[in-house]
Amino acid sequence: MACHEITYRVPYADTDQMGVVYYANYLTYFERGRTEMLRDAGLPYSELEKQGIFLPVIEAHCKYLAPARYDQLLTLQSWVEEIKGVRMIIGSKVIYAGTTLVSGSVTLACISADRKPVRAPEPLIAACQPFFL
Amino acid sequence: MACHEITYRVPYADTDQMGVVYYANYLTYFERGRTEMLRDAGLPYSELEKQGIFLPVIEAHCKYLAPARYDQLLTLQSWVEEIKGVRMIIGSKVIYAGTTLVSGSVTLACISADRKPVRAPEPLIAACQPFFL
Amino acid sequence: MACHEITYRVPYADTDQMGVVYYANYLTYFERGRTEMLRDAGLPYSELEKQGIFLPVIEAHCKYLAPARYDQLLTLQSWVEEIKGVRMIIGSKVIYAGTTLVSGSVTLACISADRKPVRAPEPLIAACQPFFL
Amino acid sequence: MACHEITYRVPYADTDQMGVVYYANYLTYFERGRTEMLRDAGLPYSELEKQGIFLPVIEAHCKYLAPARYDQLLTLQSWVEEIKGVRMIIGSKVIYAGTTLVSGSVTLACISADRKPVRAPEPLIAACQPFFL
Repeated sequence: MACHEITYRVPYADTDQMGVVYYANYLTYFERGRTEMLRDAGLPYSELEKQGIFLPVIEAHCKYLAPARYDQLLTLQSWVEEIKGVRMIIGSKVIYAGTTLVSGSVTLACISADRKPVRAPEPLIAACQPFFL
Repeated sequence: MACHEITYRVPYADTDQMGVVYYANYLTYFERGRTEMLRDAGLPYSELEKQGIFLPVIEAHCKYLAPARYDQLLTLQSWVEEIKGVRMIIGSKVIYAGTTLVSGSVTLACISADRKPVRAPEPLIAACQPFFL
Repeated sequence: MACHEITYRVPYADTDQMGVVYYANYLTYFERGRTEMLRDAGLPYSELEKQGIFLPVIEAHCKYLAPARYDQLLTLQSWVEEIKGVRMIIGSKVIYAGTTLVSGSVTLACISADRKPVRAPEPLIAACQPFFL
Repeated sequence: MACHEITYRVPYADTDQMGVVYYANYLTYFERGRTEMLRDAGLPYSELEKQGIFLPVIEAHCKYLAPARYDQLLTLQSWVEEIKGVRMIIGSKVIYAGTTLVSGSVTLACISADRKPVRAPEPLIAACQPFFL
């Protein structure tokens, strides 16, 4: 119904010599965003792992529309695009001053501790309802 | 005609607590691979920058088929999928022991120092010929 | 008089296969801490750079007492140990649940845009007063 | 008797907007250096872990004398300063074109899989002999 938002301040560590955030770092921004979405959904990822469910990324896609820069207070948006079978697709956007800088999506697979695919557990599907878009 | 290859040893720094390489780090592997491809093509990226040509990433895509692990000596393959107008698409694979772990592609835009799009310069197109696939 | 505090949530990106935060990442935590200290002191580092003052690190020291782990909400403490001549020493601690996990210090040099050492500017010294320890 | 050397090419990923390698990244360079030193000593760190010996860093120190830059082919030197009891101190230097850019040392603790301190095993001490300085 709505996407989830957190803010994140760009440190020097994330920039490169082009004076912008290095392209790989946005994937860690996506991670920060979806982790807090799951926490707000009542099901922190660390809790899922304790229950023996892991969510490795099996596919990622990013469009870099404009660069983020040092010290900007970015908005990281996350939402659930799909949960079906053993997969979950999370959408992500990085926004600054009302402009989308980067948009992308990440496909997660649900696996057990011994790395076997498992269906997305019902409590995970239920928890994600507010963040379906 | 052939893809370019380098090797890369996975440091502890690149792993995460799942015991595998963290998903964002493969994008830096792709960077390492395409940088050495350009160098072998006779046109190091640092040289391009001195000539006022920058190649920021405008799109990236990754499929994670199997995890890379600490201390593995990976093979990083790179090739040119397309150079047309202001864009260049580079394909990349991360391989270990004959198995493709990650495959992806990155779209680069040619821009000038003042961040205006410019056509891919002829010497860049010529240099890339051996690595078209 | 007091040290400055922010909180920081450990992402998967920062962990390694030992299941703890990789040792180099604490230096980025120190950066996050001292950046927010300067902002709260009324003199954001990005502002200093606009005025032509850069503060590269010339020395760093870290003691790793206990590991930080995924998803912990850490407290990052920062304070000023010394500002004298062209140097500034910032102390840092990473704390979780009342326990100091990592403590260290970083020496910064004040330099101009052309990389010449310059005395720490008066406004910087004045702004730092509340965070002397 | 001699220090160990490897080369390392600086990727864009390691630089920051000051146009130099970000200070935390040198600690990963130190890791790359000491890992290859142990491998050349005949005792790869991954082998040690399989034998139940882990070497977390308990202290690190860095002096940043001059910046490393994008695309430089750095020389990473490593040597053993001390092995005594449960500790091992490794010295490291980052060199470019004959100039030492960064020098530092890292203290490692020998621990067992259940994180108890253990004496540095004899084979580790023996293997390190060629790299004592």
